[in-house]
Amino acid sequence: MFRKRISSVVMLFLSFVMLASVVKAETPDDYKGRHAKYIFFFIGDGMALPQISSAEIYLGSVAHKDKSIVKLDFTQFPSRGIATTYDASSFITDSASAGTAMATGNKTLSGVIGMDVTRTIKFPTIAEIAKSKGMKIGIVSSVSLDHATPAAFYAHQPSRKNYYEIALELCHSGFDYFGGGGFLAPEGVHKDKENILKVAKENGYTLISSREDFMNLKPGGKVLAVNPVLQDESAMHYDIDREKSDISLADFTAKGIELLDNSNGFFMMVEGGKIDWACHANDAASSIKDVLALNKSVDVAMKFAQEHPDDTLIVVTGDHECGGMTIGFAGTKYQTFFEKLNHQKISYVKFDDMIKKLKADDSNLKMEGVMPLITEYFGLTTDKQQPDMLLTDYEYGLLQNAFNQTILDKNQRMKDDASYIAYGGYEPLTVTITHIINRKAGIGWTSYSHTGVPVPVYATGAGRNVFDGYYDNTDIYKKMKSVIGL
Amino acid sequence: MFRKRISSVVMLFLSFVMLASVVKAETPDDYKGRHAKYIFFFIGDGMALPQISSAEIYLGSVAHKDKSIVKLDFTQFPSRGIATTYDASSFITDSASAGTAMATGNKTLSGVIGMDVTRTIKFPTIAEIAKSKGMKIGIVSSVSLDHATPAAFYAHQPSRKNYYEIALELCHSGFDYFGGGGFLAPEGVHKDKENILKVAKENGYTLISSREDFMNLKPGGKVLAVNPVLQDESAMHYDIDREKSDISLADFTAKGIELLDNSNGFFMMVEGGKIDWACHANDAASSIKDVLALNKSVDVAMKFAQEHPDDTLIVVTGDHECGGMTIGFAGTKYQTFFEKLNHQKISYVKFDDMIKKLKADDSNLKMEGVMPLITEYFGLTTDKQQPDMLLTDYEYGLLQNAFNQTILDKNQRMKDDASYIAYGGYEPLTVTITHIINRKAGIGWTSYSHTGVPVPVYATGAGRNVFDGYYDNTDIYKKMKSVIGL
Repeated sequence: MFRKRISSVVMLFLSFVMLASVVKAETPDDYKGRHAKYIFFFIGDGMALPQISSAEIYLGSVAHKDKSIVKLDFTQFPSRGIATTYDASSFITDSASAGTAMATGNKTLSGVIGMDVTRTIKFPTIAEIAKSKGMKIGIVSSVSLDHATPAAFYAHQPSRKNYYEIALELCHSGFDYFGGGGFLAPEGVHKDKENILKVAKENGYTLISSREDFMNLKPGGKVLAVNPVLQDESAMHYDIDREKSDISLADFTAKGIELLDNSNGFFMMVEGGKIDWACHANDAASSIKDVLALNKSVDVAMKFAQEHPDDTLIVVTGDHECGGMTIGFAGTKYQTFFEKLNHQKISYVKFDDMIKKLKADDSNLKMEGVMPLITEYFGLTTDKQQPDMLLTDYEYGLLQNAFNQTILDKNQRMKDDASYIAYGGYEPLTVTITHIINRKAGIGWTSYSHTGVPVPVYATGAGRNVFDGYYDNTDIYKKMKSVIGL
Repeated sequence: MFRKRISSVVMLFLSFVMLASVVKAETPDDYKGRHAKYIFFFIGDGMALPQISSAEIYLGSVAHKDKSIVKLDFTQFPSRGIATTYDASSFITDSASAGTAMATGNKTLSGVIGMDVTRTIKFPTIAEIAKSKGMKIGIVSSVSLDHATPAAFYAHQPSRKNYYEIALELCHSGFDYFGGGGFLAPEGVHKDKENILKVAKENGYTLISSREDFMNLKPGGKVLAVNPVLQDESAMHYDIDREKSDISLADFTAKGIELLDNSNGFFMMVEGGKIDWACHANDAASSIKDVLALNKSVDVAMKFAQEHPDDTLIVVTGDHECGGMTIGFAGTKYQTFFEKLNHQKISYVKFDDMIKKLKADDSNLKMEGVMPLITEYFGLTTDKQQPDMLLTDYEYGLLQNAFNQTILDKNQRMKDDASYIAYGGYEPLTVTITHIINRKAGIGWTSYSHTGVPVPVYATGAGRNVFDGYYDNTDIYKKMKSVIGL
């Protein structure tokens, strides 16, 4: 299964041979038990142990009683494994190759969806195979439905950026249920193509775009449901920004069960896609709230599993870590103060939008003009009466420097390495705010990209035992396929 | 087992009740099978997933063939769990409370060894209990034998800094075998106490301090073996600095088996203590080489386990993460270049010693004078013919700034927050060198302290199944005790 490539250099470090009889893992991909009929596959994009554990420490911190954590529901699943995530081009995967690995069992290059490293061979996906056997298929994501992770379950494209072509594959997939965000290029890059919603309708999809219509949906026919309000990049709101008119990830999951439930079973993939985006932007509070939203969606599946305990498999994992998030930071040493994250009321994106509007409204905008907003939405203050969230002179200087960049047009901003390390291409003021609140809470970041630490895999229900072990993300496909009996 | 403390705030996030029947874990602490007779407990101090995974990616990177990893032997153990590490004072534990948790099953405050949070009640340790049942006991550590982790198995002190009192407890423990580093205060803080080696001898210990004597040791009587050369803080050398006259951690493990093997069984704790120290100093190469040294020690135990498969339990874990190490860094984005770590020939400590000597020899030392050493021992260069390790102007500037601090006496150096973030109290030049080589390799750090991410636990052999699951570090004690039948 795992190909060991040992050069003579490595042999120096592995002077003892593999003691196979002692270490033999008992987590075969060839499951022999009763096959699962209802499969839930939850993917927290960018969700590795730091993201999961920070949510648990956050819950423990706001509970206040002592220093113990509050566990998420899915981390208590009876089976768990650890999965490596490297792809064919790097030890650090992107979501396209990671999605392809989990959906098709094959390693490929970063950026490639459902195809091999030569970008010529299409791999069948677990969802396509399940569909061919008569199961119903649902694909839910909090980001756009043509994004890499959901696309990996129905599309085959040499580039994840072929959004229109990906969306066309969605329309022709025959899958029964799509729910979540919208589309990044619904009329193609040059806006000269037939609107993808029209194509979907022509292919038999009922289009839903209001919460009321969504809630009233009854089984029958194929459904494409897009959240009524889309935030950044045609994605649903960050959960921290969720509004009453929104359909939550848990709502999308519950409706999926209602629509897909049938005697041949179903396969539903639910992605918490914005955990990743929040971590790219080094916004811990938004990441944590989206992990909690994913946990709630898993709860919905767990309720269903209680009614069908012998036929349901629930798998929860992440596709990779993102941001190099750490629970601890040099400045706070051995302490954490995650309760300070509660001062943050909105995501970095919502604040970016506010700043953009302020800039447009006031060409002479000053730091003093935005400071009240920073206090209102992130709690950071210059008021010495509030020592917990008081900005030090050093921190205020960082904010001022960032503000000085933010008020410039993008093409006028500093573009050197140090600026990239400081801001990562994000709105300088906002990312500096989240860096400061994160550091006060005791959270560090090392990157604006993904990182290469393995991810945990949690499983419960029929066949869950095969998910114990230390394996590769491509094995997740094999294990699911084996448990479903495909 | 795990006490959930849910306030009304938390309830908001946990709107679904625990679905106990679905999530019930099958990893009891009350093991019912055949009890294990030979117990190996390996602790990588400061070794969490980033430390383990970076070693595997390093091996994969130097193997060069593709982007796949080379697994360590212990990560392939058939059972694995994830353990939380928070202590009674913080979500981020220190080694004293973590050691106490694993050795006694109790949470305590950071800094406390084998006692409760009031620092008045002594907890019996698993090693003491095992000894009282007739098993032989071995304690091995690559750091000083009175350091927090080894001390947690035989001592009970309100402060980990009570080195002489801890060492006295070692002498009176009656344990059969101590091996590794030396003692931090062998004659007490004021150097007015009886030398601890004399006390050990009076208590029946055979003292060993040469490799030859060590290798010739035969079973019979109690042994206290200290590596002939001690490096920093009475510890063994970093494995990257290991010399021929040294006794390796694997040697100490193998001799332990030889000395402890008897019909009543044995309990041996082996600590790779300098993984932590390297990570405190943000020295990835030294950390990785010490993880590989621990892996070799585990191999020795695995060989023994092959001969006694039904009676041997091997558990490998870390006590906490250290340094906020990440496999990925903003500057290298989605790429890693761990093979560049091979340019590093010595640990940060050995380089510190060189710089100290240079400073003493040349009161007019200039950056140009140390640059050849930096190139020789870390590969970093100003030679444009070597683009892989070429210092950018920015990096050279960082080195120069650090050098300007290093040549000052310690009390003259900058002591502001920014200096702490940059150097963490370490020798500015050396920590800047390791930061630069680590970043070139694609490794980030966020702290000079521990962090709060959970650690993996690996188990093989008799009773290994109980180590599957997601549990607390205090449960490791309970699980071991149950498998041994204590």
